[in-house]
Amino acid sequence: MAGEGAYEREPVALDERITSDGSSPWPVEPGRYRLIVARACPWANRAVIVRRLLGLEDAISLGIAGPLHDERSWRFHLDPDNRDPVLGIEWLGEAYRKADPNFSGGITVPAMVEISSGKVVTNGFQQLTLDFSTQWKAYHRPGAPDLYPEHLRAEIDEVMAGIYTEVNNGVYRCGFATTQEAYEEAYDRLFTHLDLLSERLAHQRYLVGDTITEADIRLWVTLVRFDAVYHGHFKCNRQKLTEMPVLWEYARDLFQTPGFGDTIDFEQIKQHYYGVHRQINPTGVVPKGPDPRVWLEPHSRARLGGRPFGDGTPPGPVRPGEQVPPIVR
Amino acid sequence: MAGEGAYEREPVALDERITSDGSSPWPVEPGRYRLIVARACPWANRAVIVRRLLGLEDAISLGIAGPLHDERSWRFHLDPDNRDPVLGIEWLGEAYRKADPNFSGGITVPAMVEISSGKVVTNGFQQLTLDFSTQWKAYHRPGAPDLYPEHLRAEIDEVMAGIYTEVNNGVYRCGFATTQEAYEEAYDRLFTHLDLLSERLAHQRYLVGDTITEADIRLWVTLVRFDAVYHGHFKCNRQKLTEMPVLWEYARDLFQTPGFGDTIDFEQIKQHYYGVHRQINPTGVVPKGPDPRVWLEPHSRARLGGRPFGDGTPPGPVRPGEQVPPIVR
Repeated sequence: MAGEGAYEREPVALDERITSDGSSPWPVEPGRYRLIVARACPWANRAVIVRRLLGLEDAISLGIAGPLHDERSWRFHLDPDNRDPVLGIEWLGEAYRKADPNFSGGITVPAMVEISSGKVVTNGFQQLTLDFSTQWKAYHRPGAPDLYPEHLRAEIDEVMAGIYTEVNNGVYRCGFATTQEAYEEAYDRLFTHLDLLSERLAHQRYLVGDTITEADIRLWVTLVRFDAVYHGHFKCNRQKLTEMPVLWEYARDLFQTPGFGDTIDFEQIKQHYYGVHRQINPTGVVPKGPDPRVWLEPHSRARLGGRPFGDGTPPGPVRPGEQVPPIVR
Repeated sequence: MAGEGAYEREPVALDERITSDGSSPWPVEPGRYRLIVARACPWANRAVIVRRLLGLEDAISLGIAGPLHDERSWRFHLDPDNRDPVLGIEWLGEAYRKADPNFSGGITVPAMVEISSGKVVTNGFQQLTLDFSTQWKAYHRPGAPDLYPEHLRAEIDEVMAGIYTEVNNGVYRCGFATTQEAYEEAYDRLFTHLDLLSERLAHQRYLVGDTITEADIRLWVTLVRFDAVYHGHFKCNRQKLTEMPVLWEYARDLFQTPGFGDTIDFEQIKQHYYGVHRQINPTGVVPKGPDPRVWLEPHSRARLGGRPFGDGTPPGPVRPGEQVPPIVR
């Protein structure tokens, strides 16, 4: 039960699905949709990682909103003329209002936009990546891993449910709490769950089974942002991630796995959180730290076994136009 | 040169001295003055440590303002009836205005107040602790260390000058910067100087000579607050202190030395910074972390030699009424 001053996430506004079996008005079709993300956003980061691991780059194009908002939310301020080159829009809200002229919900990423109509089809971030795995199978690359294997789905779903409420949302509950009591409750829940996950990961390389699954992706997008923004900006400061040995080595292992670290732009992450949440950081000053080079330090998680991509293979190089700045040693 | 958005410390308002040689209207005299501090404040912490190391408790009594302000600044809200039991005042500003009815400067701790008149004599925090060492010598305890030995003063003064501008004030410059440029300049200066100090302390136990001096006290009051407030609240986040190995072990060594850790109340420190600077932390929510128990971890600085109190002895137990809550293991 959320008490006074507790943060609650808005419900998803356009929660449709794109499916391969005719069950939705939106059929799977290569080239028909554009995935709109922002490097800063952990929910969008999931979709960027899954798209890349599965090799859906040719089937689903990628538009990248910049890190900064005004009251109109996400904007394509990194693109030439401040417009997405395919959709031609300046503000992501335009695509939401094409879908619903009276749209007044949260304008969020990730969003799947039908290119021909310019309409947002879905911003249902919980279903989106699962549908990449299950509905878009015909367009996966050769060697794509199975991120949501059928025989493990019950366990994956259970692990992800805890990660969602306690960790992914937990950091936001800490940061957006407006009372001491709501904050402390959020903090306790967050670190209690991180401790549980540390125990689980002390003796196995990945969260479920012996390969990377959707569950790892969902935990990782929060962990990779932990020290850059959640620790200070959101007051999740029992320890830094670098001070939680199991989770830190786990997160570093994934960072160094193709498809993870190569989706991360720490500067955009910091610019977004510190620049947009003026109710938490009135000056908008963006911290210079922490030093991202620690992410390149060696790890020894391979000692735990595990086959990162199972019977599949790692993804190839990042597509031109989708690269992030490298971390300079 | 301070640029746009850079923070500058207000000059000291009542910069008089209490001396033993008749050179000031305020003579050294046991029982005549009361030292007003707050546990939160690093400038006041210096005076609390020096008073205790030198054994001046009987000569100079101690009044402790609480951590929270309103626009009237420091208040005795931890005392019965919210009043200092000796001065009888609720707000420290009352003692400033007794000294100067038109006083409009910063109401700061530490302040030395003449008990009979209720007037602030000095809030000159740079001179105050040196005068405890040099002017109050007749009232030092047997075995009091020499914190400002004559033959080392030139070196101590030089080291302290750098600590003052780059570290003690440096963290405030980071936190109170209102432009990105001013912040980044402050951050670079701070960590450049911390790196220099790390080099200096890698092979010697204390900053100057082989014993604790005033220079160590001045550096330490900033280090002990680093992870609790400066790292997150002031965006001094290249690393935590716990991630700077030499400074962390140095700071822990002193924390575990009588007269240092026994003056620290981390809750009051956090309540003050996070509760008072609403321009940085609008909600006033106080972080639960970090875990203070790390300060009790063993260190091996004794390997570097050094005689903490020189030819003197450690101070005895903390006086009743002056204790801080212990860190519970």
